[in-house]
Amino acid sequence: MKIAILGGDGFCGWPASLHLSDLGHEVVIVDNLSRRAIDEELGAESLTPICSIDERLAAWKEVSGKEIGFENIDVAQDYDGLLNFINTYKPDAIVHFAEQRAAPYSMKNSRNKRYTVDNNTNATHNLLVAIVESGLDIHVVHLGTMGVYGYGTAGMKIPEGYLDIKVEVDEDENGNTIDPTLVDQQILYPTNPGSVYHMTKVLDQTLFAYYAKNDELRITDLHQGIIWGTHTDQTARDERLINRFDYDGDYGTVLNRFLMQSAVGYPLTVHGTGGQTRAFIHIRDMAKCIQIAIENPPARGERVKIFNQMTETHRVRDLANLIADISGAQVEMVPNPRKESAENELHVVNDTFLDLGLNPTKLAEGLLHEVEDVARKYADRADMSKIPARSLWTQNQAEGVPPSVAESAGGAGNPDSAAKA
Amino acid sequence: MKIAILGGDGFCGWPASLHLSDLGHEVVIVDNLSRRAIDEELGAESLTPICSIDERLAAWKEVSGKEIGFENIDVAQDYDGLLNFINTYKPDAIVHFAEQRAAPYSMKNSRNKRYTVDNNTNATHNLLVAIVESGLDIHVVHLGTMGVYGYGTAGMKIPEGYLDIKVEVDEDENGNTIDPTLVDQQILYPTNPGSVYHMTKVLDQTLFAYYAKNDELRITDLHQGIIWGTHTDQTARDERLINRFDYDGDYGTVLNRFLMQSAVGYPLTVHGTGGQTRAFIHIRDMAKCIQIAIENPPARGERVKIFNQMTETHRVRDLANLIADISGAQVEMVPNPRKESAENELHVVNDTFLDLGLNPTKLAEGLLHEVEDVARKYADRADMSKIPARSLWTQNQAEGVPPSVAESAGGAGNPDSAAKA
Ligand SMILES: NC(=O)c1ccc[n+]([C@@H]2O[C@H](COP(=O)([O-])OP(=O)(O)OC[C@H]3O[C@@H](n4cnc5c(N)ncnc54)[C@H](O)[C@@H]3O)[C@@H](O)[C@H]2O)c1
Ligand SMILES: NC(=O)c1ccc[n+]([C@@H]2O[C@H](COP(=O)([O-])OP(=O)(O)OC[C@H]3O[C@@H](n4cnc5c(N)ncnc54)[C@H](O)[C@@H]3O)[C@@H](O)[C@H]2O)c1
Repeated sequence: MKIAILGGDGFCGWPASLHLSDLGHEVVIVDNLSRRAIDEELGAESLTPICSIDERLAAWKEVSGKEIGFENIDVAQDYDGLLNFINTYKPDAIVHFAEQRAAPYSMKNSRNKRYTVDNNTNATHNLLVAIVESGLDIHVVHLGTMGVYGYGTAGMKIPEGYLDIKVEVDEDENGNTIDPTLVDQQILYPTNPGSVYHMTKVLDQTLFAYYAKNDELRITDLHQGIIWGTHTDQTARDERLINRFDYDGDYGTVLNRFLMQSAVGYPLTVHGTGGQTRAFIHIRDMAKCIQIAIENPPARGERVKIFNQMTETHRVRDLANLIADISGAQVEMVPNPRKESAENELHVVNDTFLDLGLNPTKLAEGLLHEVEDVARKYADRADMSKIPARSLWTQNQAEGVPPSVAESAGGAGNPDSAAKA
Repeated sequence: MKIAILGGDGFCGWPASLHLSDLGHEVVIVDNLSRRAIDEELGAESLTPICSIDERLAAWKEVSGKEIGFENIDVAQDYDGLLNFINTYKPDAIVHFAEQRAAPYSMKNSRNKRYTVDNNTNATHNLLVAIVESGLDIHVVHLGTMGVYGYGTAGMKIPEGYLDIKVEVDEDENGNTIDPTLVDQQILYPTNPGSVYHMTKVLDQTLFAYYAKNDELRITDLHQGIIWGTHTDQTARDERLINRFDYDGDYGTVLNRFLMQSAVGYPLTVHGTGGQTRAFIHIRDMAKCIQIAIENPPARGERVKIFNQMTETHRVRDLANLIADISGAQVEMVPNPRKESAENELHVVNDTFLDLGLNPTKLAEGLLHEVEDVARKYADRADMSKIPARSLWTQNQAEGVPPSVAESAGGAGNPDSAAKA
């Protein structure tokens, strides 16, 4: 199959590209390298030393004998470039990772809020419009987030995208009053995003639902949990293929931040009670899920297929304790800079991927590996000044919290930073 | 009160600005005049002769003694200009009309789809971000559309924005299995937009819900029906104050197009069976509703207030027959270029505005007036070549319909053009 990977230079896109190339697919990466530019803007670097995209691709060719193409296109800004690429390359599937994906970064200031909405909405919309204009029958696989759910009902598992509801009607078709009757309906799960970043994934959902209906595009939206882990079978083959490992206050996700904090002897800082429950998936399983999604496209005219792409849930404080047990690190509780409930349950349906053959790497088995092979191995590359998370969700929070506490919340680092991915 | 009207040079914004100024409010119009540029792009003109914005404002001052300010700012592109305006003018309320609002225009080609999403999403998002950054407590009143509903249940009236549902739960708080129980919830009404334009109003809704929650902005979203009529008490005072009357295939709304077609002896073309039911409101009532919405803001921290801003519903074929009866015009049935159900019922709750004192102008009384004072009066300005609606909703439709029929659908004009407003 011919597969284009938008955002293929990123944390998820790179291992997904290698995995699909390894399976024998013809892969082209489309990326504007904006994430590397943001690294520079933030003065942050991956804990693992990542090579340039050219070196990565050359190394892959050397190691595997396989060629992955690369196109530097800004999917959100350069519509003509994108359309031209699609018309020339004629992919069977396009995997769409090309979005600004850090919640704290999206909340930092007006510029970042605006960039995140503009970049993500236009990237997704350009892709859909270009496919319609090309007239090609291309399956779109998009990376969404578990964070679009959020509206929850105690005692109800979060379904895969669509919710069964009952509504009361009191008229028949002719407008005559009848006894109130409950009617069954199925709707897109009502959303309640927790940051500007998460909100853009709700905007994406709306775009997908529309283009699947009006233009019968074939779209799969993966509501992904927080990724943990670094290596996949492919990225581990050569150090030049290594994947990024973000630990900074903006892009570092909760588990990777804990791992790295433990490796450098930094306390594992937990917000509030640490009672927020999050969904997780290992990076290897992410790559496998992309493969499964590509192999199981919806039919033309079918509604958007939505899969929950996560394999386990944990409370943040339990994670911290788990890693503290393995590594001997300290756990420290600090005020929460996010606007969210202190404690929440999270029960998620994830049958589709399990039924289609996903065999998850569980935290309990994989964690030690990560601590030793990644966090400790590259600990000397850590820049301690980048650990704190400095984004606050509202100005009120900045004002409401006494400065010393606010400072310690930031200063001690926000392990939950991009947590509600 | 100090009120800023974004999009105040448009069909709704202009009469709303005059109405609020007439009531004694301090009004400033913010508009980039993009709508006048689109008129030129389409080679279309308002049936009524509209003056430049400067002439309009000078005439209003002459006639009323009141001054309305004007700022030429592109709300979607010039964030700094918008923020600076808000910080300087410090409005109590901002009415947001500044969006591309024609469904057929939004469907015409890739460029228009992209422009509509980019312009409308960034206009709304910039406004919300700028208000947060300003730190001012400004009430936002936005013009949404009845067209965001669409998902319907026979026998259920469309509520004002929020839907009562029941969902089944089968666990208690501790995760123990219990007998399936129905739990009541209230959610934002599930959407099903019928065009790219309507989809942007769903995107807007998502932005509003988020900023009302996270930043406690005070927001009212008016789900407006299709406007009909031209004059208000203020625009009728001087011909230089006259409002625009669009009749072209892109911007002309169904009723105004029928009126004008009847005045020039063109057949009233009805799509399919004409069984689509639409919601309507007179332009005078629109202005009054804006006033009522401004006078009844939500509290800080309250969810978005949503009002249905419509006063009656009609099937398209009934409207055509009504106007044919008054004017003696012919009614002609042609294939529908839109992708939508042939027949639909529409029952809408609109109690809020009625309870708050709206006293609607009904079609049955106002129509004759429009035929005589507007359509016939300016009939000699009509450009017959602009009447046909040429946008098709999908490429399939272009291919599926035999050319002769497609031509006649376009050629005979699409009275339903911007109908599902
Ligand atoms: N990492 C997680 O835990 C996680 C969890 C849930 C969902 N996701 C989603 O998966 C996707 C990938 O996440 P990631 O962690 O790999 O992020 P990342 O930032 O590492 O990668 C995103 C890539 O997209 C590129 N990109 C961004 N905007 C672009 C544009 N306009 N044109 C071209 N390229 C552009 C960037 O340069 C980068 O290489 C995102 O959509 C994210 O929301 C990630
Ligand atoms: N006319 C209807 O029947 C109807 C029905 C339902 C809802 N609405 C909504 O009411 C609002 C106004 O509709 P209208 O009929 O007056 O449309 P219009 O096109 O006549 O007016 C819109 C005005 O906004 C301005 N504008 C657009 N983008 C702008 C930007 N980026 N920056 C600054 N100004 C910008 C235009 O120049 C124009 O003057 C729209 O949001 C529309 O969706 C209209």
